[in-house]
Amino acid sequence: MADAGSWLPTLKTDTPEAGYQLALKLSRMAVKLTQPSAEVRDELRTQYERDSGELIEIAHVVAVNFQTVAAANDYWRSARA
Amino acid sequence: MADAGSWLPTLKTDTPEAGYQLALKLSRMAVKLTQPSAEVRDELRTQYERDSGELIEIAHVVAVNFQTVAAANDYWRSARA
Amino acid sequence: MADAGSWLPTLKTDTPEAGYQLALKLSRMAVKLTQPSAEVRDELRTQYERDSGELIEIAHVVAVNFQTVAAANDYWRSARA
Amino acid sequence: MADAGSWLPTLKTDTPEAGYQLALKLSRMAVKLTQPSAEVRDELRTQYERDSGELIEIAHVVAVNFQTVAAANDYWRSARA
Amino acid sequence: MADAGSWLPTLKTDTPEAGYQLALKLSRMAVKLTQPSAEVRDELRTQYERDSGELIEIAHVVAVNFQTVAAANDYWRSARA
Amino acid sequence: MADAGSWLPTLKTDTPEAGYQLALKLSRMAVKLTQPSAEVRDELRTQYERDSGELIEIAHVVAVNFQTVAAANDYWRSARA
Repeated sequence: MADAGSWLPTLKTDTPEAGYQLALKLSRMAVKLTQPSAEVRDELRTQYERDSGELIEIAHVVAVNFQTVAAANDYWRSARA
Repeated sequence: MADAGSWLPTLKTDTPEAGYQLALKLSRMAVKLTQPSAEVRDELRTQYERDSGELIEIAHVVAVNFQTVAAANDYWRSARA
Repeated sequence: MADAGSWLPTLKTDTPEAGYQLALKLSRMAVKLTQPSAEVRDELRTQYERDSGELIEIAHVVAVNFQTVAAANDYWRSARA
Repeated sequence: MADAGSWLPTLKTDTPEAGYQLALKLSRMAVKLTQPSAEVRDELRTQYERDSGELIEIAHVVAVNFQTVAAANDYWRSARA
Repeated sequence: MADAGSWLPTLKTDTPEAGYQLALKLSRMAVKLTQPSAEVRDELRTQYERDSGELIEIAHVVAVNFQTVAAANDYWRSARA
Repeated sequence: MADAGSWLPTLKTDTPEAGYQLALKLSRMAVKLTQPSAEVRDELRTQYERDSGELIEIAHVVAVNFQTVAAANDYWRSARA
């Protein structure tokens, strides 16, 4: 049963773009749960946002999560184009 | 047959958020089984929790495990939204 | 419902090559959303476009996204050859 | 035909936990087949078991193999909970 | 509709080996589209072809693309052995 | 149509262990096709076979290829145990 108070009530999204945003959220949440301090994460951000290798790796994580979200939505095949 | 005394009795979870927590657990267990010393793991934590590259890589592992858990739960499609 | 004003209205493409281009776009978008400054991204490009390790890693991200796009298009099986 | 004398007679396991153990075995076997010397592997272990980056990467490999084992067991859906 | 003038008219191949060659092509194309200069790519080649870490990473990208091509061909199950 | 003279005539194997061996072969072939010199590959081997990070990464590539081979064989479900 989905929980409206959850940060992840469902994997369903109305559009592919919303699904991509959810993939970003899924990617960030693992970092947040491992490093709960917003202050430390802000410090780290100043580093990785200027490090091409880390930015590429972030894109990799998002790609894996987007696979999951896209499959969960049957690739939005039934959405009207 | 599922074993109630197991750390992994089932891949089924009630909600996507619980599935994400299980993905975190699956990710940590491989480290725990390779490095059984809690003391050493605590030392390592002080390092990786401030290393953006390693935090991103942790998010990567969680993403792969979440794919597995999500598929096992048929993406929680039948859960009530 | 697909949104014509979206950068990602659909995962459907007419051809495998167009699907590959979409995979490139999906790969770049995660970087863009993490580092919104075009100026910084241009600086980073001068680095990674001459770094074989990072180019290979870009190819890796594209490969993951192409898996998603290809599955979404049922591998273009019904396309006329 | 499965071979009882094989180190990998089957991908079927009774429980998810046993499946995770098999994923660990699959992960280690590639290392063993590439570096057959137990002595060298023991030396390497003293290094990677204290290197958080390598431990995370081990967890990554286990996650990929667990996907395979979980799919092979249809996610243990028919196991009694 | 497939385009005969495309570098990727289809994901179908007659044999697994041809599918593997296509996976190599898919892997290289992302590099080519990111670094269009053949001269620079030739320089980079002299580096990565003697760097075991990068060669392994290339094998990783090919493996991901081969998954896609193999699925697109239903693993060549109907091919005559 | 499968080609008996091919290094990859089929993805079918009789057992999971043979499938794992095929995954190793698929992993090595990408390296071989990128670095055709056996002499250079032998030099590189002396390095990566004593580098835990590279050995783990090799295991990663094998894991991805084993996913493909296992799926191609329907996880050897119909094999007699």
